[in-house]
Amino acid sequence: MIKWIGFDADDTLWKNEEIYLRGRREFFKVLSKYGIQPQDLDSMDDFEVENIQYYGYGVMSFVLSMIEIAIEVTGEQIHPGDIQQLINLAKEMLTEQVEVFDDVVPLLEELSSEYPLLLITKGDLLHQQRKISMSGLTHFFRAVEIVSDKTPDTYQHILDQYQISPGNFVMIGNSLRSDILPVLQSGGWAIHLTDHPTWSHEDDSLAIAHPERYLKVKGISQIADAMETLMYLAP
Amino acid sequence: MIKWIGFDADDTLWKNEEIYLRGRREFFKVLSKYGIQPQDLDSMDDFEVENIQYYGYGVMSFVLSMIEIAIEVTGEQIHPGDIQQLINLAKEMLTEQVEVFDDVVPLLEELSSEYPLLLITKGDLLHQQRKISMSGLTHFFRAVEIVSDKTPDTYQHILDQYQISPGNFVMIGNSLRSDILPVLQSGGWAIHLTDHPTWSHEDDSLAIAHPERYLKVKGISQIADAMETLMYLAP
Repeated sequence: MIKWIGFDADDTLWKNEEIYLRGRREFFKVLSKYGIQPQDLDSMDDFEVENIQYYGYGVMSFVLSMIEIAIEVTGEQIHPGDIQQLINLAKEMLTEQVEVFDDVVPLLEELSSEYPLLLITKGDLLHQQRKISMSGLTHFFRAVEIVSDKTPDTYQHILDQYQISPGNFVMIGNSLRSDILPVLQSGGWAIHLTDHPTWSHEDDSLAIAHPERYLKVKGISQIADAMETLMYLAP
Repeated sequence: MIKWIGFDADDTLWKNEEIYLRGRREFFKVLSKYGIQPQDLDSMDDFEVENIQYYGYGVMSFVLSMIEIAIEVTGEQIHPGDIQQLINLAKEMLTEQVEVFDDVVPLLEELSSEYPLLLITKGDLLHQQRKISMSGLTHFFRAVEIVSDKTPDTYQHILDQYQISPGNFVMIGNSLRSDILPVLQSGGWAIHLTDHPTWSHEDDSLAIAHPERYLKVKGISQIADAMETLMYLAP
């Protein structure tokens, strides 16, 4: 029986990947001045993933990686004015308006009248807080948990904190790596938003350990139905 | 009557400002190659404080400000290899060993046997988690709260979460701005570590609103006595 619902935020409730894709396009534009093409930057993702150990997830991590990549691929020839432009880009990304997806507000209205909702999001603390506040969705949530990573331990810690048994919990999100797999591993249920844009690192073709506790939906508008299906599945 | 004790972490339980001071010296060394002297960088603090609105507090904020300052004061002449050196410096700072101050372990042993302790620290989420884990002090604390800023609202939110009445709470820390004033404003008690190193921004000569709920001690070894004094003061 489901008693609590967890929601991811970025790319689940509001647009996020789109902002990073735009950031990448600006980055490519800066580098094109040095004759560097996007295909020369194939390893950019690996570089960013490598830096997560230092910076965690978020825009600051993204810009610090961009600066390092730019220095490396230009053979230390990038103009400092262009580095400043990358920093300005980061500041724009950090203050960008939050665009909540269609159908999110009625869904949260409906679900929050029946269940306590948790918002569980990872990234830079201040930026996540700012986005949550800008979204206007805070009042739908019993609590907000901003975490540096989403591992089975992270979820276990949160479930313990609210004294939730994993079998009574469902997590809804767009990322197999962060929202679905660790929750299934912890003994919880998961609803995967398959058609929401997702950073490749967050959506590797990872094996689903417990398909019986896992539902796929294309978008927000199908979540209410999926919750009804779960009512039958969850013992 | 005091029922809960909150501790700040950076520069209260372990060394922190020292690492930033070393970072600044490395930064000055890089800039000295361009004929720039530390006194030419008098406004560096203002620049960093201005950037807190984007990045919050922490090493990533520090390095992004250093890069911007370096670009500006060199008139965009800084060599990209030197910018890479600043990024390497940030990575070193982010993975630096944690050096717990003398007398902290016996103090926490004693206090945690009598009170539930909260660790309340601000900064980059991942870095703070890593430092807490490296400190070996986690088991002394009932809970750890990592926040992006320490305002009266921040403390009120934490006190509400643990259902603590402000009059039953004392916060111990080195920063007037972050650990002492907002807690006094929220109706709590505070013990100020006056001789611990503190970033100037954290220690402006701010007025003390409620001196009757505020004790000053020089160092960790005087906290146990101050707690006994508080027992008489707290109604």
